[in-house]
Amino acid sequence: MLSPFNDEYFMKKALQEAEYAFEKGEIPVGVVVVIKDKIIARGYNLTETLNDVTAHAEMQAITAASNFLGGKYLTGCTMYITLEPCQMCAGALYWSQISKIVFGTPDLQRGYRKTGVQLHPKTEVVSGIMAAEASELLKRFFIEKRNLN
Amino acid sequence: MLSPFNDEYFMKKALQEAEYAFEKGEIPVGVVVVIKDKIIARGYNLTETLNDVTAHAEMQAITAASNFLGGKYLTGCTMYITLEPCQMCAGALYWSQISKIVFGTPDLQRGYRKTGVQLHPKTEVVSGIMAAEASELLKRFFIEKRNLN
Repeated sequence: MLSPFNDEYFMKKALQEAEYAFEKGEIPVGVVVVIKDKIIARGYNLTETLNDVTAHAEMQAITAASNFLGGKYLTGCTMYITLEPCQMCAGALYWSQISKIVFGTPDLQRGYRKTGVQLHPKTEVVSGIMAAEASELLKRFFIEKRNLN
Repeated sequence: MLSPFNDEYFMKKALQEAEYAFEKGEIPVGVVVVIKDKIIARGYNLTETLNDVTAHAEMQAITAASNFLGGKYLTGCTMYITLEPCQMCAGALYWSQISKIVFGTPDLQRGYRKTGVQLHPKTEVVSGIMAAEASELLKRFFIEKRNLN
């Protein structure tokens, strides 16, 4: 029997988190952290709600996953992120030594790949999973935001 | 009358925070955030205690300063840091649009300047303030750590 668990399956869960951010008026970015096909942490962007630039989805999910695991290294974990991480989040992922990140849509302005930020050499990167859906949600957010102002 | 407040004055306060980290068995890095000669946030590295790679002194102090100010931008603030920030913390400082950072000793391995991380164009940088003291504390930490293991 085919396993229902693949990158699309978990990216859908991250997109669900991004929808929660959208509903709160936050730039819609969502994350789940997975180990052995089990989601151990979820997060969505809360920078406006918390008045805190460090409250990106990834940062919260790293803290939550470490809490779940009882250790600060995310070895064996995969993080699914709807948007390419920024330099802060990529820096945090570096420290976490996470095994894999999978992101949806690239962030050509603020994504870590534009800067020289290093992920950990142990970290595998996959990109473009459900990129259209993540990008569509972001576009919808900025169009609505513009119309409100 | 001469003001007692200068970079050395506030860096001493940051070094005091680093001492607290040292006492807890944490890599000794400390931070204070200052606005108009007033300390509005303090922090020291708590990554081991909290099992959380994101618990660097700077990250905590950004959150605390934003909390104090009731806004996520640290305009008008100066952060004093005993050690050159890593790429994660520099990335967070970028988002905060902080006006100035002053750091003590350079981090040639993991400091943000080695990577291509961008601080915000509005952020002024001063380095080398009480660098010897910060460096000495770090050295003492690693020597003790080595002897214990």
